[in-house]
Amino acid sequence: MKKNGILLLLRIQLITGCNHQPGQLEENQLILAAQGSFMVGRKVLTRPGTFEPGNNFEPDGQTLHGDHAYVFYQQPAQARTYPLVFAHGYGQFSKTWKTTPDGREGFQNIFLRRGFTTYVVDQPRRGRAGRSTEAITITPAFDEQLWFNRFRVGIWPEYFEGVQFDRSPETLNQYYRQITPNTCPFDIKLYADAYAALFDQIRPAIYIGHSQGGNVGWRTLVKTKNIKAIVSYEPGGGLPFPEGAVTSDALTLNGRPEADQLPVEEFMEFTKIPIIIYFGDNLPETGERPELFEWTVRLRLAKQWADIVNQYGGDATVVHLPEIGIHGNTHFPFSDLNNIEIADLLTAWLKDKKLDK
Amino acid sequence: MKKNGILLLLRIQLITGCNHQPGQLEENQLILAAQGSFMVGRKVLTRPGTFEPGNNFEPDGQTLHGDHAYVFYQQPAQARTYPLVFAHGYGQFSKTWKTTPDGREGFQNIFLRRGFTTYVVDQPRRGRAGRSTEAITITPAFDEQLWFNRFRVGIWPEYFEGVQFDRSPETLNQYYRQITPNTCPFDIKLYADAYAALFDQIRPAIYIGHSQGGNVGWRTLVKTKNIKAIVSYEPGGGLPFPEGAVTSDALTLNGRPEADQLPVEEFMEFTKIPIIIYFGDNLPETGERPELFEWTVRLRLAKQWADIVNQYGGDATVVHLPEIGIHGNTHFPFSDLNNIEIADLLTAWLKDKKLDK
Repeated sequence: MKKNGILLLLRIQLITGCNHQPGQLEENQLILAAQGSFMVGRKVLTRPGTFEPGNNFEPDGQTLHGDHAYVFYQQPAQARTYPLVFAHGYGQFSKTWKTTPDGREGFQNIFLRRGFTTYVVDQPRRGRAGRSTEAITITPAFDEQLWFNRFRVGIWPEYFEGVQFDRSPETLNQYYRQITPNTCPFDIKLYADAYAALFDQIRPAIYIGHSQGGNVGWRTLVKTKNIKAIVSYEPGGGLPFPEGAVTSDALTLNGRPEADQLPVEEFMEFTKIPIIIYFGDNLPETGERPELFEWTVRLRLAKQWADIVNQYGGDATVVHLPEIGIHGNTHFPFSDLNNIEIADLLTAWLKDKKLDK
Repeated sequence: MKKNGILLLLRIQLITGCNHQPGQLEENQLILAAQGSFMVGRKVLTRPGTFEPGNNFEPDGQTLHGDHAYVFYQQPAQARTYPLVFAHGYGQFSKTWKTTPDGREGFQNIFLRRGFTTYVVDQPRRGRAGRSTEAITITPAFDEQLWFNRFRVGIWPEYFEGVQFDRSPETLNQYYRQITPNTCPFDIKLYADAYAALFDQIRPAIYIGHSQGGNVGWRTLVKTKNIKAIVSYEPGGGLPFPEGAVTSDALTLNGRPEADQLPVEEFMEFTKIPIIIYFGDNLPETGERPELFEWTVRLRLAKQWADIVNQYGGDATVVHLPEIGIHGNTHFPFSDLNNIEIADLLTAWLKDKKLDK
């Protein structure tokens, strides 16, 4: 058994090229009641004409099922009542929530171990949900140093001092390979429709979004009654302010609208569930580095928005991690080196809100 | 606990829209020692020039990591020695091996339950491995009735009598959504390179391919020493014949080359490991329906090829399922209604070849 354990360990180390501890695998088994995958979202197009079986390669009368989301679910033994639905951000896919770039466990495994059923999603037109209904030309994008900076790992080629990001070349290799293209033009309404359909299928659950996935979350909430809470890591864009609550100027970033304004009755939906928003470190006070400062603007907007939600009787919290003594987090706190500490914060909040029954 | 069990069951039924049996979840737990994901394949391109942090949106001097495969692995407690690596086919992704279109367990779960570590792969430029290094234009494809026929579910809109395929509309909906586009031009050498890199990383394992993934398997074997056996479901194309063994005409299908010819010393690699190939039902004797007959041609070529492999001292088997009394299988035997019976055949073969230690 010991020898076998060591063999397993060696294999896993080879797989991830990283720091699993001896014995961890044996001690740390995952017990699942079920796991599986499915697509959600029902758009079907039919080409005019009649399909002739002898003429298979003619599109006439044939169908195209597309614009669905791809979902992988895992249900631990004795699962808690409310599943966690994980929504990735711009340019990323569900890998966001899986094994970290340096090979440690991500939120998918961490929260399975803590008894939550997890639904990890590739949004429509991304990753495994690639079958879409519109044309696109994808050209190779040389943009990885841009993301190194915008995701606040550092200012390429320098890492931020104390950044919670492993500095081995293999980690950066895996990190860059988490990027995947859209297989169809951007359509945030479509993404929200797919998530709303998922929540209506699985019934009450908790939405956990990252970056643009935060934006998708705000738009999903108003389409379904089955979101029990929203957790948002560095949401990017689309914060839903009540009309007239702030000046339109306050809602722009680099000249582009950065937040939405909703009729008050629609905005009130955001006062009916608990919401928590987290932001990481290295957010400059001033705009010399726009690729960093954009996140400062979003943090400030999020705080302003949470105040308004709470004025209207809601329960919104914004946590700027350095303000509670947690330093060095990037745009991906849930996969940073201290992601267990980040998971502990969320676990405590879920308990406080009685969402971990 | 009972109530909870029923709640879980209800949720799973909603999820999969299918036939989980009461109690099954509680009885049927999966115990994992580990699970995780990573990308394999190392191509990196760098745009000439110098990256200026103040000028993030200029590609100059930035990198592009692409053309990798995406891999999700799960290791059961007390795993057997040799993992199973699952390779999907043309137009498909790893969903091939996961939950079936009608919501039952696929080979991923079935073989985890039988003690095998599984590696389920999205090949480069497909699904979650979408980040590629060449441009492509993707246009919506109205082709689903073509695949209904070519995959031998029936002749649209008729199902084959006795076909091992559930006839509910939701099953067909999920089946069609398993299709996903290439995010870059087709490059079988690239796919084989990625699989070879995976085998060299995880060490000895068993290659299980479907359709075009069978073709990829033949090309992978000659690039790595770590394939212990090849299992191929309805392989499509690229069977590696020794030069001069058969006439070139015998190796074409609809005028296109359907098999390869290798120098004998390279071909001999295929005599050094056990190989098994399975074909399903509804293979016509004659070519009135080319979309069905193409598979008849491939079956005949596979039998011819296996004879030659065995003449050279190898161990190749071709199983035409109806010949052993198993009827109604489509191009996807491993996800057909009788996929447990199909898995039992493979389990017995692995045991016979001492590959299940």
